[in-house]
Amino acid sequence: METSIVARRRGRPPKELAGFSETRDTLLRAGVAALTEKGFSATGIDEILRSVNVPKGSFYHYFGSKESFGAELIDIYAAYFARKLDRILTDPTRTPLERLRDFTADAEAGMKRYQFRRGCLVGNLGQEMNALPQTYRKKLRDVFDDWQARTERCLLEARETGQIPANKNCKALAEFFWIGWEGAVLRAKLDGGPKPLRVFADGFFSVLTS
Amino acid sequence: METSIVARRRGRPPKELAGFSETRDTLLRAGVAALTEKGFSATGIDEILRSVNVPKGSFYHYFGSKESFGAELIDIYAAYFARKLDRILTDPTRTPLERLRDFTADAEAGMKRYQFRRGCLVGNLGQEMNALPQTYRKKLRDVFDDWQARTERCLLEARETGQIPANKNCKALAEFFWIGWEGAVLRAKLDGGPKPLRVFADGFFSVLTS
Repeated sequence: METSIVARRRGRPPKELAGFSETRDTLLRAGVAALTEKGFSATGIDEILRSVNVPKGSFYHYFGSKESFGAELIDIYAAYFARKLDRILTDPTRTPLERLRDFTADAEAGMKRYQFRRGCLVGNLGQEMNALPQTYRKKLRDVFDDWQARTERCLLEARETGQIPANKNCKALAEFFWIGWEGAVLRAKLDGGPKPLRVFADGFFSVLTS
Repeated sequence: METSIVARRRGRPPKELAGFSETRDTLLRAGVAALTEKGFSATGIDEILRSVNVPKGSFYHYFGSKESFGAELIDIYAAYFARKLDRILTDPTRTPLERLRDFTADAEAGMKRYQFRRGCLVGNLGQEMNALPQTYRKKLRDVFDDWQARTERCLLEARETGQIPANKNCKALAEFFWIGWEGAVLRAKLDGGPKPLRVFADGFFSVLTS
């Protein structure tokens, strides 16, 4: 999770607006960090506020409640991740299967940067969904659908260019990838190392080309 | 999660011991239900006590702390699951690959029984590991190692009997299965339905036999 998770606004905002958005963005960044590391239930608002030295009043001024804060965190994480997938999975200098490998390598590097303590915000919240506001369920499912659709497009390109056999079902493979990949991220956090990501990626690529 | 999760003691216990173990077992059963559904962080001891109408003093008398209660829940869940895997994966009336299919079908039936609200206790706690007592990490990893070893033995039998090709790496396949399967259970909870379990199982079986 880079600090670029909160998309930069274009141009220079007016002075007081700048102050406004800086505090807000600081809270969002701290929220994403906490949710990728520990999930929603284990994250206390007080602890986030202390970590970035922001008073409680500001939090409620900007977000109203922990529930709407969490909803916004899902949205910005989804937007950040969509930009990342777009950059990697449509890179014209790489073949479609190289792009998928690039994605798994990027994910491993991203987890390594935080000693495999931070995983996927959407996977974490999906796991604890039965303890979360029910409004999150559709949001989280939509995010997976989006990631799967992007991955399917890359696989279709691989099939068109003959990198994978013509009889492969790219939609099913994209679903299979994301179902298993979230398991791999979970296990990499538990292990504190990259092996589960590699075992799953290697298995998946052998499915693609067999 | 059946009520048989807490293994029955042999014979009839003395009267007061019976009362002792009944309350204790009731708490363990409620704890397993809560942890499979919501995980550790989102589960409050007060809420468990209310759900089974047991006073707080009894809880601390039997378990001392939430941490040691959680540790015992991991142990009894692991023992319950080992019995289940043993029963299914060594069933002499079924071929090795039928046994693996039986396991995925049993898991689907088990999730359906609770409307796909309850998942895997070990997967849930693995996901939220960074918010848990660090002593849980080794316990959870050991449980996955045990499940993988049991699955590997079944795959080795499948290879010996020619159900899967001789060049397959059964250890890597067993790891691949459990990495991905936990992702499938997570997604089945999020979806509230069996499709992710089936997509992953079908993909896995196509890997085995290709």
